[in-house]
Amino acid sequence: MPAVDIAIDIGGTKTLVSVFGDSEQEAYELEEFSTQPAEGVDGFFERLSDVCLRMKGRRDVNRWGLCTAGAVNPATGTLLWSPNLGWKDIEIYKKTASFLGPVGAVENDCNAAAFGEWTFRKDIESLIYVTVSTGIGMGMVVQGKILRGANNAAGEIGHTIVKPDGPTCTCGRRGCLQAISGGRGLEIRAHDLLGIEVSTKEIIDRAQLNEPLFKEMITEASETLGRFLCNLIDSLDPSVLVIGGSLGKNQYYFDRILKTFEENYYRIPGKKVKVELSSVEPNPNIIGILSLSRRTYKD
Amino acid sequence: MPAVDIAIDIGGTKTLVSVFGDSEQEAYELEEFSTQPAEGVDGFFERLSDVCLRMKGRRDVNRWGLCTAGAVNPATGTLLWSPNLGWKDIEIYKKTASFLGPVGAVENDCNAAAFGEWTFRKDIESLIYVTVSTGIGMGMVVQGKILRGANNAAGEIGHTIVKPDGPTCTCGRRGCLQAISGGRGLEIRAHDLLGIEVSTKEIIDRAQLNEPLFKEMITEASETLGRFLCNLIDSLDPSVLVIGGSLGKNQYYFDRILKTFEENYYRIPGKKVKVELSSVEPNPNIIGILSLSRRTYKD
Repeated sequence: MPAVDIAIDIGGTKTLVSVFGDSEQEAYELEEFSTQPAEGVDGFFERLSDVCLRMKGRRDVNRWGLCTAGAVNPATGTLLWSPNLGWKDIEIYKKTASFLGPVGAVENDCNAAAFGEWTFRKDIESLIYVTVSTGIGMGMVVQGKILRGANNAAGEIGHTIVKPDGPTCTCGRRGCLQAISGGRGLEIRAHDLLGIEVSTKEIIDRAQLNEPLFKEMITEASETLGRFLCNLIDSLDPSVLVIGGSLGKNQYYFDRILKTFEENYYRIPGKKVKVELSSVEPNPNIIGILSLSRRTYKD
Repeated sequence: MPAVDIAIDIGGTKTLVSVFGDSEQEAYELEEFSTQPAEGVDGFFERLSDVCLRMKGRRDVNRWGLCTAGAVNPATGTLLWSPNLGWKDIEIYKKTASFLGPVGAVENDCNAAAFGEWTFRKDIESLIYVTVSTGIGMGMVVQGKILRGANNAAGEIGHTIVKPDGPTCTCGRRGCLQAISGGRGLEIRAHDLLGIEVSTKEIIDRAQLNEPLFKEMITEASETLGRFLCNLIDSLDPSVLVIGGSLGKNQYYFDRILKTFEENYYRIPGKKVKVELSSVEPNPNIIGILSLSRRTYKD
């Protein structure tokens, strides 16, 4: 019976587990369950263990990789903190190794996604991945290496203040990038303005129908994010900037981001800039952490 | 007669040439002359050659390094473009090697400065150098490597638009970072408001004397820059961010930048952030390009 590789992506709302054939890039099986961080770390890892063991069945595990929202130190195998999950100083490597064995790698989800997108492209110097979903985050790969930062906290762009007098963010401050341009931020603002719950999808749909309030929100959201991407490109000059995440991949939203970007980035002779939509399936996080585990543990 | 190392820093207004003893970190001799880019590339390199050859006298040149404002490709030895100098596609390595010999290195000035600051510190993972002078630029070193970008254009933060309806920049667009927070930008705004020439130094002095117009300008300038630095720290998580340049090193201006920074950066558990004033003499550009030439050419 052939051995398998297992890739795990823990998100704020759902967790994805994929089983791959050894050296395959397409998943045999995929399963999703809700993360429920409030039930605690131990409860979560018990459920994760159940799902992984059931999915692998009687096959051996060659390697595993696990990525999660929050600051991860891959060298110590620790999740330092995760505001989305409400967890701090968790030995995620040790906990996962206890049921999948020692051959595994852990990483921040945006870093993994950047690496996933990078492995799909040939001959590029560097790549920035920006996820736009409930929140906003970033990962960067330069010459095959993940840029993690001195405190494993690089890429925390969601809480950069872009509008000092802007809307209040979930972090308690005002005008953070994700309070204006992220899904949760849009929903909170719609609720504040209308007094009812409106989903991000509905906000986008109604903006497309030219309802003034929603159109104004999406215009501000996409222009703010488009300008922020200019800033990243000016500072870091990547070969490619890839946008992913459920909101970022919405074509209407993406087109508007791209328009602002094209109008505002600093053009210099010979500089080539590419902004692309993520197209890695099932998602770049899974493919990235799979590739990282394979790179770390070559047979 | 001992051989010497020569370090050259071509700035928009002045060029600095330093002669170092082999492996010394303190310059034997320093000379400065005005760059006068308008007289053309050939005229400039003739003068540079005269100064270098007179300064070295009868001593041999062991290695040389040259850094300059603008995008430099160290691999091909080319200055790709420099808006400050108005030069484009100049073979700066070849031109300098013609009078100092083949053992030399060329680099962008902010990259060199970041490397210069990095060599002075022990056990740090990464460093960002931001120069605040006539314009604003950035260099970054991660684990001993300069982050150059895919087009050798990383660090071009001066022309990032931070205020869409802000003052017109020398590049023709509105609200660039350096139009608000750089020396030339401050001088242009003072001129627009008062109709007279006021130097950056005088603007700062009069702000310190609480003259409302100048105080307001410096408040906006320092707050804008302080917020931009938060953005860099959130995105890149460097071990240290060093501020240099004649305006950045002004204590009054620096203190105000630091205040905004402290009030606004995104605090996460365990994250250490250091913002420091550059103290490398004669300047980090010279020390950086000297160190780079020595690293490239080890005897």
